Amino acid sequence: MHKILFIKKKSRNSIPLAIKMSRGIAEWRPELCVGETSGSSCNLSVGLKKLSMDAAVAAGARTLILGLANSGGIISKSWIPYIIEALGKGMDVACGLHQKLSDIPEVRRAAEKFGSKLHDVRHYESDLQTGKGFQRSGRRLLTVGTDCSVGKVYTSLAIEKEMKTRGVDADYRATGQTGLMIAGSGICIDAIAADFIAGAVEQLTPDNKDDHWDIIEGQGSLFNPSFAGVSAGLLHGAQPDLLIMCHEAGRKKIKDLSHYNIPSLEQCIDLNLRMASLTNPNVKLAGISLNCRMIGKQEGLKEMAKLEKEFSVPCFDPMITGTASLVESLPAA
Amino acid sequence: MHKILFIKKKSRNSIPLAIKMSRGIAEWRPELCVGETSGSSCNLSVGLKKLSMDAAVAAGARTLILGLANSGGIISKSWIPYIIEALGKGMDVACGLHQKLSDIPEVRRAAEKFGSKLHDVRHYESDLQTGKGFQRSGRRLLTVGTDCSVGKVYTSLAIEKEMKTRGVDADYRATGQTGLMIAGSGICIDAIAADFIAGAVEQLTPDNKDDHWDIIEGQGSLFNPSFAGVSAGLLHGAQPDLLIMCHEAGRKKIKDLSHYNIPSLEQCIDLNLRMASLTNPNVKLAGISLNCRMIGKQEGLKEMAKLEKEFSVPCFDPMITGTASLVESLPAA
Repeated sequence: MHKILFIKKKSRNSIPLAIKMSRGIAEWRPELCVGETSGSSCNLSVGLKKLSMDAAVAAGARTLILGLANSGGIISKSWIPYIIEALGKGMDVACGLHQKLSDIPEVRRAAEKFGSKLHDVRHYESDLQTGKGFQRSGRRLLTVGTDCSVGKVYTSLAIEKEMKTRGVDADYRATGQTGLMIAGSGICIDAIAADFIAGAVEQLTPDNKDDHWDIIEGQGSLFNPSFAGVSAGLLHGAQPDLLIMCHEAGRKKIKDLSHYNIPSLEQCIDLNLRMASLTNPNVKLAGISLNCRMIGKQEGLKEMAKLEKEFSVPCFDPMITGTASLVESLPAA
Repeated sequence: MHKILFIKKKSRNSIPLAIKMSRGIAEWRPELCVGETSGSSCNLSVGLKKLSMDAAVAAGARTLILGLANSGGIISKSWIPYIIEALGKGMDVACGLHQKLSDIPEVRRAAEKFGSKLHDVRHYESDLQTGKGFQRSGRRLLTVGTDCSVGKVYTSLAIEKEMKTRGVDADYRATGQTGLMIAGSGICIDAIAADFIAGAVEQLTPDNKDDHWDIIEGQGSLFNPSFAGVSAGLLHGAQPDLLIMCHEAGRKKIKDLSHYNIPSLEQCIDLNLRMASLTNPNVKLAGISLNCRMIGKQEGLKEMAKLEKEFSVPCFDPMITGTASLVESLPAA
């Protein structure tokens, strides 16, 4: 088994969301994780055992994952000594940022010297085509959101798991670095050339059996002024039959852009359905995934009941209620 | 003066639209163009003198531009001998495709050997930031469209020219390879990493004087299933005060995707305004640019009169009526 050690370093934006990548892997692939390590000024944790590099290697760690994501996707200079130390101890290093490990000369040289591998998972190396928009066989569900980091990865994985438990033929399709490291494959669509967004998603979710479900991880939000282009292209390439709207209860402002308000669920659902209908005129809203991290279980259950009534679809928090109510409501699943 | 020779080669999609890049440069930068050359099976022309490579060099050509664009952005193998011949005769070679000249080993070697330069203008080499959505000073007009290749570059350049003639402080901002080669600067936003679409446009059209106009070249269409992601990010990053809707009269189907219909002008204007309002709530439709290539002048004038009445904004074909009616209608211009 390929054991993993996480590194987290305090950054200017070191809110809990900043470690969503390491937390995602720790949650969904616990059997692969041996521990975490971080700079002395960092008090964030994914709840794994804190280990030194030597202790991690002794415990079987073979890959160091840079567990922090940031908007610009830059590898901080302060991480480089840790990266080189890990390479020197025989570990591979994996990174999900826009900047490539292999573009940093001293890191590349260290990897060559110690015979360790660099995994720049954000970068897709094969050829891509532009989107064609042809109807594909099989069924597709896409998680969309009112913002980034509202729970699209978690929701998608929880739906896939619930479907599989019930014997439904389903595959999670990763479109970002966290999902890709969990699933072991995928395409980080925010890092490919903009012309190929829709085409890459078509390639990621090709024709399939009529009763097969692709559960496609969404990205960003049509209402996020940084990333709506990615969301729009993904919506067209995914050609979803069903949308799940993901929202964090209580979040008022767009992540990292507090001069933008979170849209109303109604606005956001409406615009997503309208845009998605270009490549699948039969697209429907199937449910609302409400991340109740900030409001807690009691308040969350009330809010979910209210939204179910308002939108006439199942509303769930995968961490509180699970996704059974949604999966049971799907006709073909 | 840096003289240019064009090359065009017949491709599977060799409809006239395929040479819109060379045609655009020939139209807007005639003083730079010495002639055109093409494979023997190609009967497309931008109307320049047909010259052999030797004759072009004798006439002062210092750059060969690959004048053909295609959806996938691939450099055809059949062009390589021409490219190497041009390099051998001392010309630089410029390419606006996704694939880089410098990634083709024999081309790179030939450029090194002969001391000529390769210009991969589609690729932006400096650092980019994600979009921030802050209000910027100065005024911005963006051309959007019902599809690709309906006349957004031409419309934008014609508006800039008309404004300058009237003493308005205006700059054309190129977002694609044709515009970039005409303007001499710009960012090809369809080739940058998808996360940075809006941010690149923010960088391309920064704060400016209050009475300055950026005339921003649009890309694709929100209704083109291949490229709507690029269009959406551009719309947000441009933060336009005014939109010009560009449309080709008589076009029924999306370019290269005949299984998709061209949207109605009403649908297309409505969705563009709605999406654009995220970063500029005061955005307005300022005019309709109607490309009358297929229906001709007489029919075109009738159609323009009809659309002016229907949408209560100036409707013009920059090639038939010019853009004066539009520019006169702008309050601050």
